[in-house]
Amino acid sequence: MIRVSIIGSGNVAQHLIQAFSKTADIELVQVFTRKAASVSHLLPIDKIHTNYNELIAVDLFIIAVTDDAIAEVSAAFPFNNQFVAHTSGSVSIEAIDSKNRKGVFYPLQTFSKSKEVDFKTIPICIEAQKGKDFQILETVAKSISNTVYKINSEQRKALHVAAVFVSNFVNHLYQIGNDICNENDLSFDILKPLIQETANKILTLSPNEAQTGPAKRNDTQTINAHLSFLTDDNQKEIYKMLTKSIIDNGKKL
Amino acid sequence: MIRVSIIGSGNVAQHLIQAFSKTADIELVQVFTRKAASVSHLLPIDKIHTNYNELIAVDLFIIAVTDDAIAEVSAAFPFNNQFVAHTSGSVSIEAIDSKNRKGVFYPLQTFSKSKEVDFKTIPICIEAQKGKDFQILETVAKSISNTVYKINSEQRKALHVAAVFVSNFVNHLYQIGNDICNENDLSFDILKPLIQETANKILTLSPNEAQTGPAKRNDTQTINAHLSFLTDDNQKEIYKMLTKSIIDNGKKL
Repeated sequence: MIRVSIIGSGNVAQHLIQAFSKTADIELVQVFTRKAASVSHLLPIDKIHTNYNELIAVDLFIIAVTDDAIAEVSAAFPFNNQFVAHTSGSVSIEAIDSKNRKGVFYPLQTFSKSKEVDFKTIPICIEAQKGKDFQILETVAKSISNTVYKINSEQRKALHVAAVFVSNFVNHLYQIGNDICNENDLSFDILKPLIQETANKILTLSPNEAQTGPAKRNDTQTINAHLSFLTDDNQKEIYKMLTKSIIDNGKKL
Repeated sequence: MIRVSIIGSGNVAQHLIQAFSKTADIELVQVFTRKAASVSHLLPIDKIHTNYNELIAVDLFIIAVTDDAIAEVSAAFPFNNQFVAHTSGSVSIEAIDSKNRKGVFYPLQTFSKSKEVDFKTIPICIEAQKGKDFQILETVAKSISNTVYKINSEQRKALHVAAVFVSNFVNHLYQIGNDICNENDLSFDILKPLIQETANKILTLSPNEAQTGPAKRNDTQTINAHLSFLTDDNQKEIYKMLTKSIIDNGKKL
């Protein structure tokens, strides 16, 4: 049994607490947070601590705090030579204070507090500086997820940027679709099967094979009709830029 | 039993042929195409016709051809006062030649030949100029789909533009994610669970509630790190524009 403690109480911390509670391989020893109320529904109150000095040594500390707090939190740690991993996609392993052994435990998923996730399906990208520490991370990651990847800090940076494109930006395009529906007395529900199928297609086709639409066909008549339909300047600019990008991409192939 | 014939042999035509073959409520009478070979695996050869003069009268002709061929094909029709519907999201009902009764039968989905779809889950948007014709469309649509919407030509235009944002443009962002993975020796598979969850989230949350990421948090440090990581000018411009759009959208709320 591996003993793990979590620092933080945000989205990622809460989902990790739930995932660790479900596996017999991990003992969740303590959770440190300044906001005890945000995790008190997830674990016994005696496991929640608001004072660093109450933390006890375990096999792995997971720091699940905002990116810019990682350095400060790891520096405030009351231990030396403990194994400490952060959960960020965009922060280097070096951000962790050097008095402890460093690692990264990055679950590549979009977490919202109000939406449960199945951790088994979430890829976890791990990195450590020592072989023994890597094995701890691997065991912990495999106890909650079916897909675990060894990813270095440079690759993780690339992955995080790619994730912004395929998740944050994609969701914003859903938002624009929703806005256009609202402005035209249409239910956004009509678009949901299309959204699902678009995401499902790339499980069996490459994005390039899956591409359809007026830009892919270089159908300038439809493109111009869409541009004159759109009245919002921001929507128009996004339409133009992504259409041009699809057309240019077609020329490269 | 409603008798239907299809004009065309592209993606939409092929998927409709398969859907009609599976329902007992519809008799697929004839398919007209200049490329008999592209549908000969889907139905008996004696139902495939390459000469307009071989077409016989039925309850509904569905013209599933490219947008700019709809007017020409419907004008070449050897009948008067038949019911003729096109399948386009972006073409007005008026494009159909006035010698016949006009309708629209628009399945809102992204079709790729190599990927089967479950028509039951596809919203079909229908429009007709006469009540009796609308009933024919409604019966045909409900025989293959669970969700049928009455949508006029102006709303359909909005829906088609929205569909480009949530499907064609979204798929292009998948493509960019794929490119970034390739450039950094990462498997695109790592991103697939994130892509699925992003699409699933909006089934229970609004896109606004589901939005996460550095732009949503106005996290300029991460945004700048991503921009300096990106070396492709096109990817950089898209990143900047969509980030600005997410930040501006947050200010509006």
